[in-house]
Amino acid sequence: MVHHEVLDRVFSAVADSTRREVLVRLGRGPASLGELAEPFAMSLTGMAKHVRVLEDADLVISEKVGRTRVCRLGEERLEDAMAWISFYQRLWERRLDGLEAYFTLLKGADGKGADA
Amino acid sequence: MVHHEVLDRVFSAVADSTRREVLVRLGRGPASLGELAEPFAMSLTGMAKHVRVLEDADLVISEKVGRTRVCRLGEERLEDAMAWISFYQRLWERRLDGLEAYFTLLKGADGKGADA
Repeated sequence: MVHHEVLDRVFSAVADSTRREVLVRLGRGPASLGELAEPFAMSLTGMAKHVRVLEDADLVISEKVGRTRVCRLGEERLEDAMAWISFYQRLWERRLDGLEAYFTLLKGADGKGADA
Repeated sequence: MVHHEVLDRVFSAVADSTRREVLVRLGRGPASLGELAEPFAMSLTGMAKHVRVLEDADLVISEKVGRTRVCRLGEERLEDAMAWISFYQRLWERRLDGLEAYFTLLKGADGKGADA
């Protein structure tokens, strides 16, 4: 089952290009806050805020190692998000089927009109 | 190609359960702002704000018909969003492959130790 709170947190977390790039970077292996911040020319505080949002969505786990905070990918696999989007796409296509049936009906009515 | 701005708008738009339910409702056919607001006991102004966010993401189209604003599903099919999530899931699985290879290596090393 898809839980609304999980979807809210997960979709919000990936609704930012910096956070999406952080996930891609962590896909290559763990990284410190400093390593994550560097390519964005971002402060550690700024990156820590993004990482917090990703942690709230279970997309990232971080831990203090000495004076460094090390981040890695978390347990969230975006399966609920994927399920919701698939559901929406089927809904969208059915809407098109409905419209198509409607236009076929209109065309049929036109055809009849032309024959008469 | 996946465009960052599109993904930002689309993921933000679906990061709210009211907006997701509005999309599902519109999958059944067009509805006025009033009809959309009613099940949430929400003001027209509140619902208009949600619809604006959905319109900015091309998920909804609305038009004035007399004194009513009628909404229907827009052209956005969430294909970029789906593509990004699929990409992330492959990334996440590869990370697991990497970890598995690592643990196999550790086990191998242990095995050798036990044999010796």
